[in-house]
Amino acid sequence: MMVIKIGGGQGINYVGIFENLHALIDAGQQAVVVHGANHEMSVLTERLNLPQRMMTSVSGYESRFTDPATMEAFLMVYCGKVNKTLTALAQGIGLNAVGLSGVDGRLLFGRRKKAIRIIEDGKKKLIRDDYSGRIESVNTKLLRTLLQAGFLPLICPPALSEEFEPINVDGDRAAAKIAAAMGAERLIILSNVPGLLEDKDDETTLIPLIERDRIEEFEHFAKGRMRKKVMGAVEALDGGVGEVIFADARGDRPIDAALNHQGTVIR
Amino acid sequence: MMVIKIGGGQGINYVGIFENLHALIDAGQQAVVVHGANHEMSVLTERLNLPQRMMTSVSGYESRFTDPATMEAFLMVYCGKVNKTLTALAQGIGLNAVGLSGVDGRLLFGRRKKAIRIIEDGKKKLIRDDYSGRIESVNTKLLRTLLQAGFLPLICPPALSEEFEPINVDGDRAAAKIAAAMGAERLIILSNVPGLLEDKDDETTLIPLIERDRIEEFEHFAKGRMRKKVMGAVEALDGGVGEVIFADARGDRPIDAALNHQGTVIR
Repeated sequence: MMVIKIGGGQGINYVGIFENLHALIDAGQQAVVVHGANHEMSVLTERLNLPQRMMTSVSGYESRFTDPATMEAFLMVYCGKVNKTLTALAQGIGLNAVGLSGVDGRLLFGRRKKAIRIIEDGKKKLIRDDYSGRIESVNTKLLRTLLQAGFLPLICPPALSEEFEPINVDGDRAAAKIAAAMGAERLIILSNVPGLLEDKDDETTLIPLIERDRIEEFEHFAKGRMRKKVMGAVEALDGGVGEVIFADARGDRPIDAALNHQGTVIR
Repeated sequence: MMVIKIGGGQGINYVGIFENLHALIDAGQQAVVVHGANHEMSVLTERLNLPQRMMTSVSGYESRFTDPATMEAFLMVYCGKVNKTLTALAQGIGLNAVGLSGVDGRLLFGRRKKAIRIIEDGKKKLIRDDYSGRIESVNTKLLRTLLQAGFLPLICPPALSEEFEPINVDGDRAAAKIAAAMGAERLIILSNVPGLLEDKDDETTLIPLIERDRIEEFEHFAKGRMRKKVMGAVEALDGGVGEVIFADARGDRPIDAALNHQGTVIR
């Protein structure tokens, strides 16, 4: 079993990923796919004239401020446009994909953060009208039911809170939770960069291997969205996943490349 | 087994419908739900400044002209905002809902109409860039797999075409196809009217019962969206469904009311 996270940035080779996955599934591999939609989210919020605000938590992690209007756009982009477009594309390539969000069958069930401490303009603030949170449990029964019947789960955020509200959760960390809950051997995180870079503007500075025990030495290389990928990698490994690979989603056979350890391997 | 179609107009009592359904499922009833999102579709297309065009086919049926930009909005509203909001609401009421579109697992598989003959301003025209079509098959395996595992399928259009494009299909007719394919005894079509009315502006003119053999005598009472509901009812009955009930979605226990034949029964 492997979990594949496909980033939501620009330049992703979806056709290449799905064709590659189709060959692997034909050869007996089991897989669950998780996807993002970050770029499309920016496109829609601009069209709807919804100014987006990024928050930086006191521990230095960046996330999208998700008020009710942003959550509505989030549902439309992630669960609507992107999830269904990718499901149709995967079906066309021969993968029997079923698109799901974390809301469906309480697939990703969690807790909303009722107050978030952030730093804005150098000052500490408390944010209360944000709809984001953390995943507490994964409904593996729904995933196993679909896998056993021959379907490929194609999953996106949001999760569902204990108060039954959709909540924004990070896609990489959702994929890590799913990989741990499903007992996956491998979590592959594909995005539009080759892996973790020493210098984020220079693709030749790729870090090929990080041992879990030494990850703290490498964390300072992770900037922006890469920070949550590293956090997800640690969560997956601590949850029993054998290895996590950050790899490039722009190549011809991105999953094969990741399996050949072209990227950053964390184990 | 019953299939319940919930209309997408204004004034629908979703909480009442889901509480009512929860009690029925607790009592051993099996159900599949199909929903629309017509009102929310108008809201989004206005916000996005996407002028909507209604087409009238040469046989007199009205439908939404679905060009690629409209299909994108359709995916966002039906599969995103409305399907996931209703799934979260149902989960909060204790129904273990899984939201699905016709794209997922080829649940609703069909054929795009490559050219549609319409009448506009009294003239016949041929429309070629429309993404709508008709359902040819229902993937009952996906529905039975979920039902057997204790999940409630909550389904919306679009369907998936043979060329793997999402296609707009009418929700009432989709519900009819699902009811026939699943061998349902009953199809309940809930909307914001009490049933088929002799005078669409006078709710006291409800037609309580129509025999299938005499439906042609009543078809002229069906105006606008009601025409497709009648078409769906005929398709369901001809597909082996025992009875179809058009009933009011605005009351306290809309499903019980329908089961008590408060509405228009067609059999």
